[in-house]
Amino acid sequence: MAEYKAPLRDMRFLLDEVFKVDQLWKDMPELNGLTLDDACMILEEGAKICEKELFPLNRSGDEEECRIEGDQVFTPKGFKEAYQTFAANGWTGLGGNSEYGGQGMPKMVTLLFEEMMFAANSSFTLYPSLTAGGCMALDKHASQALKDTYLANMYEGKWAGTMCLTEPHCGTDLGIMRTKAVEQEDGSYDITGTKIFITGGEHDLTENIVHLVLAKLPDAPAGTRGISLFLVPKFLVNEDGSLGERNGAAVGSIEHKMGIKASATCVMNFDGAKGWLVGELNKGLAAMFTMMNYERLTIGLQGLASGDMSYQHAVEYAKDRGQGRAATGAKAPRAAADPIIVHGDVRRMLLTMRVLNEAGRAFGLYVGKALDAAKFHPDQAERERSSALVELLTPVAKAFFSDRGLESCVLGQQVFGGHGYIREWGVEQLVRDVRIAQIYEGTNGIQALDLMGRKTVRAKGALLAVFAEEINQAATVWESDERLAPFVAELKAGLDCLNKTTQFILDSVANDPDLISASAVEYLDLVGYVSYAYMWLKILSSAKQGLEGSEASFYETKFELANFYFKRIYPRVHTLVKTIESGADSVMRLADDRF
Amino acid sequence: MAEYKAPLRDMRFLLDEVFKVDQLWKDMPELNGLTLDDACMILEEGAKICEKELFPLNRSGDEEECRIEGDQVFTPKGFKEAYQTFAANGWTGLGGNSEYGGQGMPKMVTLLFEEMMFAANSSFTLYPSLTAGGCMALDKHASQALKDTYLANMYEGKWAGTMCLTEPHCGTDLGIMRTKAVEQEDGSYDITGTKIFITGGEHDLTENIVHLVLAKLPDAPAGTRGISLFLVPKFLVNEDGSLGERNGAAVGSIEHKMGIKASATCVMNFDGAKGWLVGELNKGLAAMFTMMNYERLTIGLQGLASGDMSYQHAVEYAKDRGQGRAATGAKAPRAAADPIIVHGDVRRMLLTMRVLNEAGRAFGLYVGKALDAAKFHPDQAERERSSALVELLTPVAKAFFSDRGLESCVLGQQVFGGHGYIREWGVEQLVRDVRIAQIYEGTNGIQALDLMGRKTVRAKGALLAVFAEEINQAATVWESDERLAPFVAELKAGLDCLNKTTQFILDSVANDPDLISASAVEYLDLVGYVSYAYMWLKILSSAKQGLEGSEASFYETKFELANFYFKRIYPRVHTLVKTIESGADSVMRLADDRF
Repeated sequence: MAEYKAPLRDMRFLLDEVFKVDQLWKDMPELNGLTLDDACMILEEGAKICEKELFPLNRSGDEEECRIEGDQVFTPKGFKEAYQTFAANGWTGLGGNSEYGGQGMPKMVTLLFEEMMFAANSSFTLYPSLTAGGCMALDKHASQALKDTYLANMYEGKWAGTMCLTEPHCGTDLGIMRTKAVEQEDGSYDITGTKIFITGGEHDLTENIVHLVLAKLPDAPAGTRGISLFLVPKFLVNEDGSLGERNGAAVGSIEHKMGIKASATCVMNFDGAKGWLVGELNKGLAAMFTMMNYERLTIGLQGLASGDMSYQHAVEYAKDRGQGRAATGAKAPRAAADPIIVHGDVRRMLLTMRVLNEAGRAFGLYVGKALDAAKFHPDQAERERSSALVELLTPVAKAFFSDRGLESCVLGQQVFGGHGYIREWGVEQLVRDVRIAQIYEGTNGIQALDLMGRKTVRAKGALLAVFAEEINQAATVWESDERLAPFVAELKAGLDCLNKTTQFILDSVANDPDLISASAVEYLDLVGYVSYAYMWLKILSSAKQGLEGSEASFYETKFELANFYFKRIYPRVHTLVKTIESGADSVMRLADDRF
Repeated sequence: MAEYKAPLRDMRFLLDEVFKVDQLWKDMPELNGLTLDDACMILEEGAKICEKELFPLNRSGDEEECRIEGDQVFTPKGFKEAYQTFAANGWTGLGGNSEYGGQGMPKMVTLLFEEMMFAANSSFTLYPSLTAGGCMALDKHASQALKDTYLANMYEGKWAGTMCLTEPHCGTDLGIMRTKAVEQEDGSYDITGTKIFITGGEHDLTENIVHLVLAKLPDAPAGTRGISLFLVPKFLVNEDGSLGERNGAAVGSIEHKMGIKASATCVMNFDGAKGWLVGELNKGLAAMFTMMNYERLTIGLQGLASGDMSYQHAVEYAKDRGQGRAATGAKAPRAAADPIIVHGDVRRMLLTMRVLNEAGRAFGLYVGKALDAAKFHPDQAERERSSALVELLTPVAKAFFSDRGLESCVLGQQVFGGHGYIREWGVEQLVRDVRIAQIYEGTNGIQALDLMGRKTVRAKGALLAVFAEEINQAATVWESDERLAPFVAELKAGLDCLNKTTQFILDSVANDPDLISASAVEYLDLVGYVSYAYMWLKILSSAKQGLEGSEASFYETKFELANFYFKRIYPRVHTLVKTIESGADSVMRLADDRF
């Protein structure tokens, strides 16, 4: 089993040469002079804790799983100590508001750390990442009193957070939720109802857990316009900040799952639990969705990170395992067999993972950069342009990263042959763990509907136009370079396909409203592959500067990877376009009773 | 959780109307007058045991797993009793040679039963299916004395069988195996070595286990030409047929796996175990591979069957689970939400599974028909033509069924949203269980190499020409029918792509030997999608007869499914062709140390 090695060299390359963060961050005064070197130093430290503390608990956590006794949940051996180290070193507050003790790092930095965490140990990572999401909602919407009471403790890692949305009968369709909130004389609310699939609903990592719960007042409007957001702590907090009584919020059971077994997935029973309103009444969904773009990108990163871990395992095995001979003659004639990396089919699998991972890492930073600019950029036009990119591309990142993540984990497992199916090698765990990333935080089907329905059709193509214009401008610059030109031609051809397909959808959807749901997944993939093509060009346009230097091998490799991407992966665009153009009829026609 | 319902109606349709078995079997005297009705009666009985005995043990077997104590392996609760019932009802000998008490059923019948078994309980199914494979090798190659001693007991289900190929350092590359066989004075051999991944190497289902072991004599030629096949029983058999001493073949440990947890995957230690030669010295690989086409098709069926079970689970859930509203307005206005089957994206997932399953079932029968004709047909030319189809299409069936099986199981799980990730629903188990079918019995990469290397390039396209000619002839007949014509045009376009791509490969490979390994997986997929297109035409050409009858709905559905296949799945051909045409360079160029 390979040990996880954080891809620090590639991360520095992207931050420095591709995204030029020193200049970027100089333009954002709120980042207080953050530099590339600061970021890289943070990531180097982050790599250590991921490699040395989190990764070693990944397999044992899977074997041991969480367990429940009464209303207590115990995480696997070592998790509590690792969490304490993690918190003590400040990682729980990395992206937090500095007014409350957070470190105020932009998403471009936190997301690279999140990638490392997920690669090392997805189950562990969910505890701090849910907490960070909760903090973001509180920071934006909670009253000053609530922020004063909760935020610093959460950033410090003393208290953890959860998000309680799903109920047994409703997940995607939150409008039909039943959890009730009844106002009390002291201004608090009594919360009653059952929530399911609550990540970290109960555990032994922190002394308190802060639940953010969606619920409805008895007289609330029907549907999603009647949902409010409440803060419900496990232990009530006394006026002096110490922990008081146990609140009526308790775990009922934990789920037995396919993977992420060291992450406690809880059924939470709220039985007249005391809660406090966060944000405005009946605007809870909007408040909860404040941090949704950040969280969706984060969950996407689980897919990306798992793909990288899968690649690392598979490369190590492919260089070590001897089986058969190269088609062009023995490469290791003194050994009984050549290492399997000589075989085209093994290289195909390795390279597929690699080019998806590297383009994905760049794309994550690209979306992270847009999130940061939307928040921190002093220029309003730039904030708006960046917001448009965030809206358009966040669902793509979440779904495309996690879909390609499963693909990569399955490929990595396949490189191992029979050994990949055996638990001790750890690669089957990756497949089981990464599978959830396609499901939670809004299934990938829902991400695709969001992209094609709200972000494309309802926006009349305006968001895509922002992205397409940027690509076109860049392509015009790049195509004059003869090393880039052949790749630029491919990028432009793909963009052209995307634009035409989008126009086909915009033209057809009025007469065929089912077109959105019937083709959304293919459309999201199409945007994904074109986006990755754009990332490869961004990477190459920077890498060409390094071809003559002392690290020429690093930069040449980028060209060889891009070549593989455009030759072997990018042709997927053709099928997607044909499939979408076939319309919704073949999907919708069959009567329900014929299924 | 849906209960398994064997697709008997579709099976009868295929046997009767598409493959017209009554006429087919009449032409094969060795089948002793087997009729469609006989076959359907057998399948109806088989469905009962799969639905009522095997399926109920599927989840509990996964939870309990096999366990080892000393040198004994215990299957999960209920397996032993179910196996006894299964054997007592004659299912262990279904395809066996009737001279030794087998029932002599052709593969077209046994494969439909195998599909049902795998759909109900993949772990269970491996015990009898490995035994059947062993019997086939013995029936063909063993001495009369060995056959007399072993076959009847194996057909009866009293004794089980295994195949022992893989060693810790060699799986695909059997030429480097180390297990030794030393001839003894009595004509038997002493077998010493370690074999891994031995399915059913030890268990409590039968009183004896008959291992077929590949090993090398001390002076054997190097590589695969020095491998011999030996029969090594767990208990030696006395002259009177009773069980004698324990032989030196014992389980060392069992593997902890991603799935098929109720199937005992054993490390087997042979320590001077007594064995008998099967077939000729140094021709063991050929003897073992006698039944390989049968077994590969069988393992492919695990993928197909799991896809059908996945569909059954997902359809039931999609009709029951309410969430959101149809794009064209509420379909169940009195309920809080419409069933999710109204959503295009859910229908896309369901239909993808369905059209792959139904075409796959037809394709399985098509390959089974060729296997039967190659064995039973009185006309030599027909036997040879059928053998060509078997050689070409068996690797396709094994890999394409199991790849599409994983795709279908992942899609089915996705229909369930978060519930699909929870063990109690049973759909995550399907994903874990089916994953092995892509790996064992020769990984799907190896199947693809076999197809493109041995069956296509080495055969100079001759095998494909047999298949293509048959399709062309059929297409010429079908295209005059206006209901079929649009589909025939698609089929011919795909076949044209396949022919051109094949010619490109044949033309290029001499200068580029890596092309085979670099493109084999895509090439296999291309053959798979064209084959399924052909199957859909075969189905439609029969179904059109039924459109005016009392079961019009059944036959109309076939047209609607075919329409979905050609509109939404078949366009995958475009990407495959482009990818293969890009050549091997992008796959092979990156130096090993840059991975």
